[in-house]
Amino acid sequence: MVQPSPSYTITMRVEAPASQVATSNLVHEIAVAGASVTGIDMTQSHGSSIVVDITCDTVDAEHGQRVVDALNLLEGVRVLKMSDSTFLMHLGGKIEVNPKVPLKTRRDLSRAYTPGVARVCLAIAANPADLRRLTIKRNTVAVVTDGTAVLGLGNLGPGAALPVMEGKAALFKTFAGVDAWPVCLDTTDTEEIIAVVKAIAPVYGGINLEDISAPRCFEIERRLRAELDIPVFHDDQHGTAIVVLAAMINALKVVGKELADVRIVVAGVGAAGSAIITLLLAQGARDVVGFDKDGPLHPGSRRDGDPHRDWVIDHTNPTGFSGSLKEGLVGADVFIGVSAGDILTGDDVATMNDGAVVFALANPTPEVDPIEAAEHATVVATGRSDYPNQINNVLAFPGLFRGLLDVGARHITDEMLRVAAVAIADVVSDDERNAAFIIPGVFDPRVAEAVAEAVREEARKEGSGAAPQRHVASGGGR
Amino acid sequence: MVQPSPSYTITMRVEAPASQVATSNLVHEIAVAGASVTGIDMTQSHGSSIVVDITCDTVDAEHGQRVVDALNLLEGVRVLKMSDSTFLMHLGGKIEVNPKVPLKTRRDLSRAYTPGVARVCLAIAANPADLRRLTIKRNTVAVVTDGTAVLGLGNLGPGAALPVMEGKAALFKTFAGVDAWPVCLDTTDTEEIIAVVKAIAPVYGGINLEDISAPRCFEIERRLRAELDIPVFHDDQHGTAIVVLAAMINALKVVGKELADVRIVVAGVGAAGSAIITLLLAQGARDVVGFDKDGPLHPGSRRDGDPHRDWVIDHTNPTGFSGSLKEGLVGADVFIGVSAGDILTGDDVATMNDGAVVFALANPTPEVDPIEAAEHATVVATGRSDYPNQINNVLAFPGLFRGLLDVGARHITDEMLRVAAVAIADVVSDDERNAAFIIPGVFDPRVAEAVAEAVREEARKEGSGAAPQRHVASGGGR
Repeated sequence: MVQPSPSYTITMRVEAPASQVATSNLVHEIAVAGASVTGIDMTQSHGSSIVVDITCDTVDAEHGQRVVDALNLLEGVRVLKMSDSTFLMHLGGKIEVNPKVPLKTRRDLSRAYTPGVARVCLAIAANPADLRRLTIKRNTVAVVTDGTAVLGLGNLGPGAALPVMEGKAALFKTFAGVDAWPVCLDTTDTEEIIAVVKAIAPVYGGINLEDISAPRCFEIERRLRAELDIPVFHDDQHGTAIVVLAAMINALKVVGKELADVRIVVAGVGAAGSAIITLLLAQGARDVVGFDKDGPLHPGSRRDGDPHRDWVIDHTNPTGFSGSLKEGLVGADVFIGVSAGDILTGDDVATMNDGAVVFALANPTPEVDPIEAAEHATVVATGRSDYPNQINNVLAFPGLFRGLLDVGARHITDEMLRVAAVAIADVVSDDERNAAFIIPGVFDPRVAEAVAEAVREEARKEGSGAAPQRHVASGGGR
Repeated sequence: MVQPSPSYTITMRVEAPASQVATSNLVHEIAVAGASVTGIDMTQSHGSSIVVDITCDTVDAEHGQRVVDALNLLEGVRVLKMSDSTFLMHLGGKIEVNPKVPLKTRRDLSRAYTPGVARVCLAIAANPADLRRLTIKRNTVAVVTDGTAVLGLGNLGPGAALPVMEGKAALFKTFAGVDAWPVCLDTTDTEEIIAVVKAIAPVYGGINLEDISAPRCFEIERRLRAELDIPVFHDDQHGTAIVVLAAMINALKVVGKELADVRIVVAGVGAAGSAIITLLLAQGARDVVGFDKDGPLHPGSRRDGDPHRDWVIDHTNPTGFSGSLKEGLVGADVFIGVSAGDILTGDDVATMNDGAVVFALANPTPEVDPIEAAEHATVVATGRSDYPNQINNVLAFPGLFRGLLDVGARHITDEMLRVAAVAIADVVSDDERNAAFIIPGVFDPRVAEAVAEAVREEARKEGSGAAPQRHVASGGGR
């Protein structure tokens, strides 16, 4: 049964007859209706009646209405108002732009704006490297989407994608001090998206592509990486891949296996799947078989011009396996699903090798029910927050860009992604690590800085940095 | 002589011999060198020496160095370090992006981001009008430039323009609570700029064009106004025109003349000049003659395809005047210069009518020396902060966009600009108004709200608003 969730929290203002049991009656009725009360505030008390605000988690919008209806049926009870916490949180947007400098006096104005700012402009024109020193470019990332693949919801358009991009910007700042700005594009044309992102790039120290549908996302990322001198990252691919590799490193420690020795089955070779496979191979995996909806990818698979799919064909499936997904699972050590819900059962998982690892990441419904899977696998992870071992990109992107910006990186490499994954895995100590804890929690304060440090070190090693940026004299930046 | 200015404030860390007169000697020497000390902080005191931080305004960068050199010549004195306040203020940029919602707990995350945000995305996809209710669009303006006409400095490119756009964004928030974001475009192609701004528009409730060179700025503004459903404003034209009209309304009250009766000479019919003329005519002016560098515009003037210049030809110079600028000034009531420095003398101003009004707005050098002009004119205004009556766009754009955003305006009209000007003029009360105070100071807290209210009222009258946006229930926005 689906549990009440904080995504569907409602607050009701309720008038009820005054009595010793008034609130406990209300709470009881709400519990009977299947919702969880999380807060009660008395707002008014009259001689014969009281008014209370009751906040509770519900299952969905319709369930919230049923709770309201149930209370209204009680003798003398009336729900005066109902509001939805999620919508309240989004009213007016979730981010804002604030000055970092005071503008209270003529002196302030003449330095921050005209006439003083002219000197700063001239300095940058004379020495373009000063752009990172004297402007927001040093700490700022564009979160770019065209709204064609918003969450798992599909093509909702650029406006409807904005709440996600705002949320992402809020996470960037909260988790890693990065200033991020939503760029929601009213075009789905690959060439136009590339041209727009190139045109707006001067303000930014990095580009985070988000929720752009495949296969356009591949070409957009490839071209922007080639044509811009700032790092370009597609979170749906690489963010997921980083966190999957991090979790896999620790999962294999739990089951006592080496990545080089295990047989890995990957269901789904789209944007995320191909990036996951690339990173697993970079870390030393040797026996990976990828499946799409037509079956396993092998040297004889149809080639449709998608370079990522072709790359998987050329670099995986060393044994030339050509059976079905369920057949491929027999004896496998690891299953990674980035495909669709409910394609496997617990019985399928039972055919895997001892100490099986199952990452069923389809959202909101995993490839296999995680409870059933856990009956036969040693380690189970999902993309959901209501089961252990959530694979959540929030663990990767803030620290990754923190590191890239700190060194003024011009490019991003697979090796930077790999060291980021290792850094996330290493945050979980030997004492902490177990089958239900292979990945740090999203609020673990150690993660972003560990990722940033690993990325900085790797970027310096590769000579990717424009110049040391972080510890500039005189208190600028961040 | 040029005075020391806060645009060139330096702070020196100075080691000097310990004595009763150590600091007074230093201050004396700095005064002799022509700088103004604004602060002294003792940082260390040893047996035989002290270390002090001295902050002073200088005339320019070279002068700052001369001050340092002068101190270094003193017996036992050494300048250990010199820093420049203007550059310090710009280090790391002047704006930042902050979350407006907490992201501290799993509950926060599941509302602001996944999975809860999906409901908000779906709501907007189902009802696009909710975009202004549930996202930052409601309060956000893009400050768009291609860096081709940065301040008076010319084509410095998009990166070097960023400090100005950041400053503008900081002013938007400080003066009117508007969230503004710099969009510095790495293209100067008119069609590409139009395409990029259209592509990024979903996030914004308004577009402020800035420092784009003529004549491209006209076409870009015209096309974006036609093709977008949010207001598009070119500050270099319309912002200047609003403040000029505001100042003119009060200047004419000071000299006791009516706009409909005065003869107005305008030098410069580029971006700003043509917008000023348009607004003066809208307010009731009837006798305006515009001059470009080839002389006065009249029905026989050469037509070069610039629609703004052609509009001026068709709507001004009712007497068909065809003499020189200096000849045109004879007997004129008003001179408005938005052209080049030092094109007129005090003697030229002396030929004007009694109670002459002179707005010499070229920067940094006005068309006529304001001291000389004031010997013959009753009211003199400039674009500079070091003379009375500064014509500063900061008086217009924050309140204007505040008003436009508050009503969800889809378009901007000349009448909105005109009422904004009247609102600024009306902030100066009859008691306050005199020849040296025809326009409010830039920090006058009454201005932005007065402008916003006038614009809201006019927009509502015109039916321009998408919907009432400001006083939404449940504490959203702003």
